[in-house]
Amino acid sequence: MEIYRGTGVSKGVSIGIPHWLAAQEREIPRTLVDDREAELARFHLAQAQAAAQQELFYQKTLEKATAQEAEVFQIHAMLIADPDFTEEVEKLILEQGVCAEYAAQQVSRQFSQMFAQLEDAYMQARSADFCDVGNQILAELLGEEAAAACGGEPYILFAEDLLPSQAVQLDLDAVQAFVTRQGSSVSHTAILARNMGIPAVVGVKFPDRLPAGPVVVDGEKGEVIFNPSPEVLLDYQRVQQAQRSYQEQLLAYRNQPSVTPAGQKIGLYANIGSPGDLQAVLENGAEGIGLFRSEFLYMDAQDFPPEEEQYRCYREVLEGMQGKRVIIRTLDLGADKQLGYYQFGKEENPALGCRAIRFCLRRRDVFLTQLRALLRASPYGRLAIMLPMVVSLEEVRESKRLLQEAKAQLQAEGYPVAAQIEFGIMIETPAAALISRELAAEVDFFSVGTNDLTQYTLAVDRMNGEVSNLYDPAHPAVLRLIKEAAERAREAGIWIGICGEAAADPKLLPFFLEIGIAELSMSPKSILGLRRRICTYQPEEAAR
Amino acid sequence: MEIYRGTGVSKGVSIGIPHWLAAQEREIPRTLVDDREAELARFHLAQAQAAAQQELFYQKTLEKATAQEAEVFQIHAMLIADPDFTEEVEKLILEQGVCAEYAAQQVSRQFSQMFAQLEDAYMQARSADFCDVGNQILAELLGEEAAAACGGEPYILFAEDLLPSQAVQLDLDAVQAFVTRQGSSVSHTAILARNMGIPAVVGVKFPDRLPAGPVVVDGEKGEVIFNPSPEVLLDYQRVQQAQRSYQEQLLAYRNQPSVTPAGQKIGLYANIGSPGDLQAVLENGAEGIGLFRSEFLYMDAQDFPPEEEQYRCYREVLEGMQGKRVIIRTLDLGADKQLGYYQFGKEENPALGCRAIRFCLRRRDVFLTQLRALLRASPYGRLAIMLPMVVSLEEVRESKRLLQEAKAQLQAEGYPVAAQIEFGIMIETPAAALISRELAAEVDFFSVGTNDLTQYTLAVDRMNGEVSNLYDPAHPAVLRLIKEAAERAREAGIWIGICGEAAADPKLLPFFLEIGIAELSMSPKSILGLRRRICTYQPEEAAR
Repeated sequence: MEIYRGTGVSKGVSIGIPHWLAAQEREIPRTLVDDREAELARFHLAQAQAAAQQELFYQKTLEKATAQEAEVFQIHAMLIADPDFTEEVEKLILEQGVCAEYAAQQVSRQFSQMFAQLEDAYMQARSADFCDVGNQILAELLGEEAAAACGGEPYILFAEDLLPSQAVQLDLDAVQAFVTRQGSSVSHTAILARNMGIPAVVGVKFPDRLPAGPVVVDGEKGEVIFNPSPEVLLDYQRVQQAQRSYQEQLLAYRNQPSVTPAGQKIGLYANIGSPGDLQAVLENGAEGIGLFRSEFLYMDAQDFPPEEEQYRCYREVLEGMQGKRVIIRTLDLGADKQLGYYQFGKEENPALGCRAIRFCLRRRDVFLTQLRALLRASPYGRLAIMLPMVVSLEEVRESKRLLQEAKAQLQAEGYPVAAQIEFGIMIETPAAALISRELAAEVDFFSVGTNDLTQYTLAVDRMNGEVSNLYDPAHPAVLRLIKEAAERAREAGIWIGICGEAAADPKLLPFFLEIGIAELSMSPKSILGLRRRICTYQPEEAAR
Repeated sequence: MEIYRGTGVSKGVSIGIPHWLAAQEREIPRTLVDDREAELARFHLAQAQAAAQQELFYQKTLEKATAQEAEVFQIHAMLIADPDFTEEVEKLILEQGVCAEYAAQQVSRQFSQMFAQLEDAYMQARSADFCDVGNQILAELLGEEAAAACGGEPYILFAEDLLPSQAVQLDLDAVQAFVTRQGSSVSHTAILARNMGIPAVVGVKFPDRLPAGPVVVDGEKGEVIFNPSPEVLLDYQRVQQAQRSYQEQLLAYRNQPSVTPAGQKIGLYANIGSPGDLQAVLENGAEGIGLFRSEFLYMDAQDFPPEEEQYRCYREVLEGMQGKRVIIRTLDLGADKQLGYYQFGKEENPALGCRAIRFCLRRRDVFLTQLRALLRASPYGRLAIMLPMVVSLEEVRESKRLLQEAKAQLQAEGYPVAAQIEFGIMIETPAAALISRELAAEVDFFSVGTNDLTQYTLAVDRMNGEVSNLYDPAHPAVLRLIKEAAERAREAGIWIGICGEAAADPKLLPFFLEIGIAELSMSPKSILGLRRRICTYQPEEAAR
């Protein structure tokens, strides 16, 4: 029995047959070319093809996973077209006369190493992306089919590091766990595993030669066991059994309301990124959609999406939810989420810049198109519209004016519009929480975005590894702002929900119950576990 | 009489003889060179010399102006060494074989135009900097002396746009007003004029040929009058007379306490950036220093400054203030303020990153050196130490532990340390204001940094022109946080001051008086005007 230790980045236990996913690394020789311009053209063509390929991967992923998981291919498309990357490759070809394959491999390795050396864990994780990008361009240049997927029987995947382009080609239904030599808790492997709900251990120095028999992966302890002794194997089989019966238990809560034994009701809603997420929403018994991020329509496009396309998408989600409440957040784009077809100004601090409602109130044409599409979809379900990043009354009033304008236009054009459409705002800036008394008079509901609220209250960028230790949604200052908004909501007779990541944190449940939160919206996978907790909730839990 | 209209960017009226500062523009012919490498070396040498020249300008400016005004030369030094700029010049020389003069002029113009096209007003203002940088390098290449200063008699300066390197060579005592064809309210001309307290009008399309007789500059109306009629001239002379007597009136307040007629006392303190600002502090009758930004010691250095150098600097300020309170803020550096000798990680949102106390608690060696220097200087005056960017109790407690450690070290080494040193924190994050009850128990005073507090509360980067319309220190959410901190301070029996730009805003004075602010700290030039307002304050002013 050999035990290899690493970092557990996704919990659970799996027992299965190991399968080694060979790395796609190969050495491209430094071949010189005669016609440098022609070689440049070859590179540009391969670059365009590789970018198009990412789009396919994106669509394919969307079909079976969440928009969040698919997003990596949009990042790839961006990296492939990165001006610095392109410039370096072009330079190498033009100045040294080397072949495009060699240039692309050299530069992508160089960028990958550069990112690997950054201290920020999030940026380090981008290192693997650049490897992948290089491989994608190389595959196009060499006319190779993308590497065939491992297939068939259930297995435990061992890899150097799982590249996203490899992951999308895997038959993920067959993968029981991930074990990689590289990677971190914010690597794609880790995120993928957590979303799939299977164990993953990264940073494991396992030998090249894998055993033929079953191995054990313990995502909790961060251990991988080769040739387990019969006793150990039996122990882990029991753990696995317990896991399964817990999952089955949870299924019993699928059609239950979320009510504490004392009778307090708190709706459990789902966050989604596209209509593709609907199946997971229904499977996990969500009572509604608390946050539909409408950005994917804009990110995955050649231009601002037309009204008709948006209308069909919103209608699909509303119909899919069969009369349950669907809260659609209006466009939350900004300089941190770039679009191919629109140039946001370069900002020193995009998180404090022209994003979300600020952008929409500047580009009223774009905003009005979305509002019209939302209103047109409204007869097909129970729509609620929500504004992101509000800091003032004026923003809310101006948006309401625009909504009225859209409504008047549609009615003049003969479109039906639902009589009742809830209109609310995100509480995700300190300012919004602090003026929530005035804001509550203008809207039907609040939804607290704990991620941004924490970020601004503590002045901490949560994606910045250097300060992520300071990021704490349970910081007393953040909780005070949430409580403040909840009290003002109650006084005004409107309801308040939570849609940041903290919504799914069981440690915060007693607090949310105490201040009268009406709805918690989270990743579909988190719903059943939290519902069980609510249904069996004992007030002593509050004594934390 | 001809009236030319522009934008008034600094108030007041001046009457004087016009003087045209010729633009330094000239056309460098595209000469080809034989030895490209040698030409590259010429460029690098000129680049290094121009950078050194900026250092001289910096020192020279420090002697007679504030650190803020001098800072532009540090920006220049940075731009001169900018990797993108350097790379483009090198490319032009190497690839096209042109002379260094031509390459430097072309690239600096290109960068200047690029910046001019940006929408952000602040970035646009950097356009002139690149012009200036190009001229500086050109002057070095051509072996020219820097352009001689205009001198002698008082005059009104007319220019295309005043380059900072030109400004530093002027005899500023003789300049009565600025009139430029280019420029904006955030251009150097505007900042310089406001700091000097003289009128300035920019964007004026005046003719090349200036009149011989006196011209009138009205910084309030944004007008420049050539050949004024006798009546107009007389009117303006009266206005000027009124200005002068107002200034003289203000001088009467120099040694007055800042007390309202109702007997409420509120200390008026000064913000400074270096010991060079001390003279202005004393001339304007400041009751103490409310904010000494210690950054200049670090920015203007080859390495983290040694204890001895810091000690001498702090001691100089403490002695200069003769027993008046001097609040020194510990190092507030971060990825937005770069150092030549230390590589901060690249951050997506530096304002939400590893800055100020966060940096200090990571680089304890750097922090401890500063604390030791502060303690060693403490016997020479009335020192108060203040931490920036606090968001948690832990940061304060940890800093106090380090201060104790420094004190113990110094006592063991035989250095005297003052018995009473006030210890306080900036309230400049929403978190700090929201947990001010707990923080108040740990410190002797609070000082509200309204600039950052506004920035985080409203999630608005105030340097970002795209959203600067949302930046409002008088936003009810910001005022609520300030009031909260003031109430918690009063309950704990500690004092609270304001040291952001809002401190000098007369519109906020009634609010500050009402919530019991003990001290307002501002640019020295603003003190006497505000003191007059306090001494003549009528409570009806509060009814805003």
